This record gives sequence, structure tokens and C-alpha cells, in this order.
Amino acid sequence: MTEYERIGEACRMLEHISPQPETECISLTEAYGRVLAENITAEYAVPSFCRSAYDGYALRSADIHSASPEEPVTLKVTETVAAGSLAGHPVTEGTAIRIMTGAMMPEGADTVVKHEDTRFTEREATFFARASAANIIQPGEDVRQGELLAEEGQTLGAARVAALAAQGLESVRVYRRPEAAIFSTGSELVPSGQKPEPGKIRNTNPWLLGGYLRKYGIVSRDCGILTDDVRIMARQMGQALDKYDLLITTGGVSAGDFDFIPQVVESIGACVLFHRLPFKPGGAMLAARKDQKVILCLSGNPGAAATGMLRIGLPFMKRLCGRKDYRFTEAQAALEESYSKHSPGVSYLRGRAGITDGRLVFRRNDNQRNASVTSMTDCDLLAEIPPGDCRLSAGERVKVFFV
Amino acid sequence: MTEYERIGEACRMLEHISPQPETECISLTEAYGRVLAENITAEYAVPSFCRSAYDGYALRSADIHSASPEEPVTLKVTETVAAGSLAGHPVTEGTAIRIMTGAMMPEGADTVVKHEDTRFTEREATFFARASAANIIQPGEDVRQGELLAEEGQTLGAARVAALAAQGLESVRVYRRPEAAIFSTGSELVPSGQKPEPGKIRNTNPWLLGGYLRKYGIVSRDCGILTDDVRIMARQMGQALDKYDLLITTGGVSAGDFDFIPQVVESIGACVLFHRLPFKPGGAMLAARKDQKVILCLSGNPGAAATGMLRIGLPFMKRLCGRKDYRFTEAQAALEESYSKHSPGVSYLRGRAGITDGRLVFRRNDNQRNASVTSMTDCDLLAEIPPGDCRLSAGERVKVFFV
Repeated sequence: MTEYERIGEACRMLEHISPQPETECISLTEAYGRVLAENITAEYAVPSFCRSAYDGYALRSADIHSASPEEPVTLKVTETVAAGSLAGHPVTEGTAIRIMTGAMMPEGADTVVKHEDTRFTEREATFFARASAANIIQPGEDVRQGELLAEEGQTLGAARVAALAAQGLESVRVYRRPEAAIFSTGSELVPSGQKPEPGKIRNTNPWLLGGYLRKYGIVSRDCGILTDDVRIMARQMGQALDKYDLLITTGGVSAGDFDFIPQVVESIGACVLFHRLPFKPGGAMLAARKDQKVILCLSGNPGAAATGMLRIGLPFMKRLCGRKDYRFTEAQAALEESYSKHSPGVSYLRGRAGITDGRLVFRRNDNQRNASVTSMTDCDLLAEIPPGDCRLSAGERVKVFFV
Repeated sequence: MTEYERIGEACRMLEHISPQPETECISLTEAYGRVLAENITAEYAVPSFCRSAYDGYALRSADIHSASPEEPVTLKVTETVAAGSLAGHPVTEGTAIRIMTGAMMPEGADTVVKHEDTRFTEREATFFARASAANIIQPGEDVRQGELLAEEGQTLGAARVAALAAQGLESVRVYRRPEAAIFSTGSELVPSGQKPEPGKIRNTNPWLLGGYLRKYGIVSRDCGILTDDVRIMARQMGQALDKYDLLITTGGVSAGDFDFIPQVVESIGACVLFHRLPFKPGGAMLAARKDQKVILCLSGNPGAAATGMLRIGLPFMKRLCGRKDYRFTEAQAALEESYSKHSPGVSYLRGRAGITDGRLVFRRNDNQRNASVTSMTDCDLLAEIPPGDCRLSAGERVKVFFV
């Protein structure tokens, strides 16, 4: 199996765990950004009636069929109909009704001539050409009755919410936002609010990973720093498994003396899906499942933890939110700057997407160190650099993953 | 002045109104997605001390300078130092200290050799090559002391929040989220929760526009449907001007009988910046200012209103939030499908960004009608189609605006 295959397989292993997210009914005003848990079909056509597209005159097109600049046709204007009002009587041969944009077409009329194309008085309107367009908004032009308006698994943006409001809906069923618990390990860590003694550092992983989880719609809870004691760790994580939809740990996942995570995972009865993947940074990760729940055990270094979480865990996280479009958006991007590396595995560079001359460009972040939080600044692309020694020139294309 | 120049000028007129957004101090846990109102420099270097990048042996590189597979060098291991702990004594000539990833480097040592590159017992470690790298994380490698960590006007993503947490910050000063009032006009409208009588339609504009405002960080309030009475309209909008940062109206802005908006704007003493722009849909718009506040009067048709708001108002809206990166992201995109039009002005098509073979592609939404809410579904690009008759083939490049 190639490095790519192993990485892809790890990603799919998580994907194939089918979480069954719970649903809840919420007010439409709260629905922006949420994931729909039902299909919604249109009860009503929008618009539900024939409307004028312009301010003008509603008439029978046959009546002005012969109109020309030389031989204009004049029709009697019988009334004016405003948007929201109804005409008092139909349009009959030789007559027209003055109509405003959005007003319901009067019976008998098949066409609207824009008022700027006519000459008119209060009582009459004169037409200088046959009608070139009906200028009518047909019923169902925006939404047909019975049409699928929004689908289960879609994220509700402004237009979808508005389309539901157009049906008079006041609430919708969405997937509950999943909740993730983040456990940190590492005896060098102190909570970020605490001043570190010599040799200790502030723990930033819950801030960084929690920010990503939030971006993808997952609520996160910082469960603090675990002590290096397998029994205590197992108890705390076991309890969290009952309560949370996803467990994330950082640190303790390599092969060092203090890397207890594999033991902990085993002792809570979770089944290891994979351990150590051939990429950097963050490949020193482990994933385990217990029933439909996932434990994602990431590196301790923030840049590595975030890269591992995104590259491997992102499709699963989206699925956990109920999203149908959970798969990676992958593309080819041109490197803005040259890049060389000497390492056996695949590397993921953190950077930003740009468009130059119509092409997707990968702009590498300055700092690419594993331990670096700043390596993730504004990162919306991970660029995949092939295994082995490699030397890529500016402009060369690499595979990128949108994160 | 060309059509493009008039459109660009309208956009800049709004931009040049310098709103002075208020600031507030919030907890760092609430800061994701907010716009920073202060520059923040690093009080501490991160890391603040020299750390080992691997599990291995800390030593003086000079001591193993002569090491080779044939003539390995063995050093006495004096102690083990875990991450978060300090060595009891310095590394002296001929000795090494076993060290864990992230632990502070002991005095005297300048290099870490990974444990997998050695042979070791409890008391000794043997080295088979000179040190090829220091394997040390230097102080300030992530963040230097005094470095500008985050700038006024930047949006706080996961990495920036984490970088602030690494400094022990617990709160930050951000711009208050601006508030916009949305007034709808049109006697055909009923509130979306109400069943429309014949000839009437549900009002979806506050849902659609409110969704966009929310996306850009602005809180919106649906102020209902105004009656077609200039005095009442002026009073209600005048009161809202005192309370809200931005006023948005829909409908009543063309030249029809019931298009009262220009009069209303005048009677509340606002100064018209522009009225009617040469593009479709949504060019029938008006913008006015009163002091530093903007009244954006949009078309009544949802697709037109949203297009006008985004194409002209977006940079202003971002600025109102305090964002430094308020200017449009423009690019060239290839049309996925051919497109022809016959109209004098510029047209904006609503669609989605895709990347095909490394190139930005514009995927036009099916429905492009002005009155259509669904024309805005998943819209993240507006494509600019030149004025006049035009016939563009698939693959031709057009200017696009990211929205």
C-alpha cells in the first residue's frame, strides 16, 4: 500500500462510521448555518399567481399586433392596479389596464408593455410596436409547487432560509450540533490562564482545535489536562464517551515513555482503527471507535495536531454534523513559491488559497513548524507534498485540500 | 464615465464613509470570528525556553564529533528529564541526559540525538554518527517576544485566538457587531408568517438580506413592512437611524407611482450618494448618507436586492464591522457554460466557485430571475457580464467577485 493509500484509507475508515446525529426542531430565525434533517418540498408555487414584471399596461397582445411607429394603436385605460391589489374587471378587446410591477395580471390580458414604451394619458395609452415580450412573471417561476426546496443534509444559507420563509415555514428540523470533548495530555502543560513555571508551557490545543471544530459546526468543551496515569485517564475518557459525540486528545500518542494514549484507548474497550500514518506533521495520530463514537488522538504539537485533525478527521466531522457534502474538496494548485523537502513520508504544508490569473495558487504560511500555532494562521488549504526527497519550483502544481 | 466606472464609483462612495465602529472587551472564548480592535504584541516568546524536538539524548555535539559506525562513541547517561521537568544538573563532557520531546534543554547540551539513532541501556547511550541536526526548538521559534501577534482589523480565526491564549490573554478588545434595520416596502407584501390573500406575496427580503448581513458579522432586525405614506416612512426610518448602524430598505426605489423611497430619504435629511446604477439585477438602487450612517435602498425583488447589496454594499458592510480586509476579492474565472445576453447595462450572474484542473470556474445558478430567491442559492461568486449584447462561450473568462 502506498503512503497515499494508507492516508486515504484512514480517512475513509472514519467516514464509514455512520454517526446517527440527533435532530431538533428550531425556529427558522435560528436556522442559518444549521444542517437540515428533513427534505422540504414546496407547498405553494412562488409566485402563486401571474405577476407583471414591470410598471406598464396589461393588454391583449392581439390588440396591438398591427401597431407601428407609423400606425400606432391606442387603447382605452380602464383602471390602475397596484401591487397587492386586484383589478376590478378583466381586460377586454380594445382596453388596457395600467399595472404596477408585481401586481397580479388581470384576467384577459396576456402581455405587459412597459410604460416607457408607450405614450399615455389618464384615459388612454398609445402603442408603437407589437409586443416583443410578455413581461410576465409566471406562477412557479421561482419555485414550483411540490418542488424539493431543501434537502436533508444541506447547510442552510441565506437563500435557502428565505425560500423556506416564502412557504410560510416558521420552524425546521435540523441536526443537533455535535459536542466534542478535548483532553490534553503532557506534563509540560499548564492551562492557558496560568503562568507557566520554568520548563512548562501554556496549553493552546483546546483553543486551536476548538476553533476548527466550531468552524465546522461542532461545539467543543475543554476537558483540561489529563495526568499521566492510565487508570485515571481511562476513567475520565470513558465517562466523556457517554456524554460527548466525539473525543479528541492531544499528546501522548507516539512511542515515548510517557505516551500512554494507546494503553488508555485499549483499556476503555475502544477498537483502534489506525495508529501512525505516513505523513508530517501530525501523522503520529491514532483513531479508535467505540460503537458509533470516535476517539481521535492527535499529536501534542499544535500545528501537527491541527493538521492531523483536518487532513484525516474533517470528512468525519462534517458527517457528524449531518452534512451530505462531507467529502474533501480537493483541487490542483500552483505553488506560489518553490519548496524542497527531504523526508520519507508525505508532507502537508499549511497555507492560503489565492487566485492569480484565473488559477488557484497555494500561498504557503511562513511558519511550518510542528509546534507552531502560527503555522495555522488563516490556513484554508493543505498542500500535499509527495513522499521522499523533492524539489518543487514555483508554479508547479500540487494537490490541495480545502479545510 | 463608463458603466464600470459608475459602478466602481458607487462602491467607493460607500467605502469612503468612515464608520467609527464602537469597541467592546470580550472573553477570548467568545472571540472566534470577531474583528480585533487593538494591536496585540507578544509579551512572551513562544516557546520561552529551548526545548527538545524529539525523544532522545541531550549532549554536547563535540563529544560525538568523531562517532561512526566503525568507531561509535558511548556517553554516560546521568538522568532522564521529562517534558515539564528540569534536569537536575548540566550536561558535562562525556555525559548525556535522556530527554523527552518538549522538555527544556539541560545546560551544557547543544544537541539532541533521536533515541532511534542510538543504542542504549539505562546508564549509557552509544552514538554511531556525528550529530546531523540540533533537533532543538529555539525560544521564539513560534512567536518572538514583542512580535505583532494580531492586528486591529483582523478577524480572529482559530490560530489567532490560540496564539493569544498562548500569551495568557483572557479577554480582547473587538469591534461591536454592527446592527442593521431592514425595512420592506410594497403593498403586495405580507409578513412571511401570514397567509397571503390573492395578489399578495410573503416578504422574504429580511430573511435573505439578514442572512447575508449575518454572514458578514452584522446583526439584523426585521423592522417590518412600511406603509406607502412618506411621512410615516420618514418618521420610522428617522428613528431607526438613531438606533442602528445601517438602514436597508427594499422596494419603492424605481420611478413608479408607488416608489416613495427617494422622497422619504430626502425628507429625513439624508444626502443621496447615488440613485440607479447601470447594472442588472438590482441596479435600481439608491444610497444615502446621514452623518456617518448609510441608508441602502434596494430593489424589491429578492434576487435583485441581494445582488445590489452584495455588489455595491459589501466592502462598506465589512468596513462597518471594523475589518481591514474590506475590499472585494476579485478574480478571473472561466464560465462553465456559455452565456448570451441582450441588454445595455452590465449584468451580474449569480453562481458558485469551482476549481477544475487548477482553474477557477464560474458555475451559474440555474435560476437568474430578479424576483427569485433561489437565484441566490449557495451563491459565492457574482460574474460580471459586459454591457451590450454579448455571447460568451464556455471557458471564456469573466471577472468575478467573491461574495
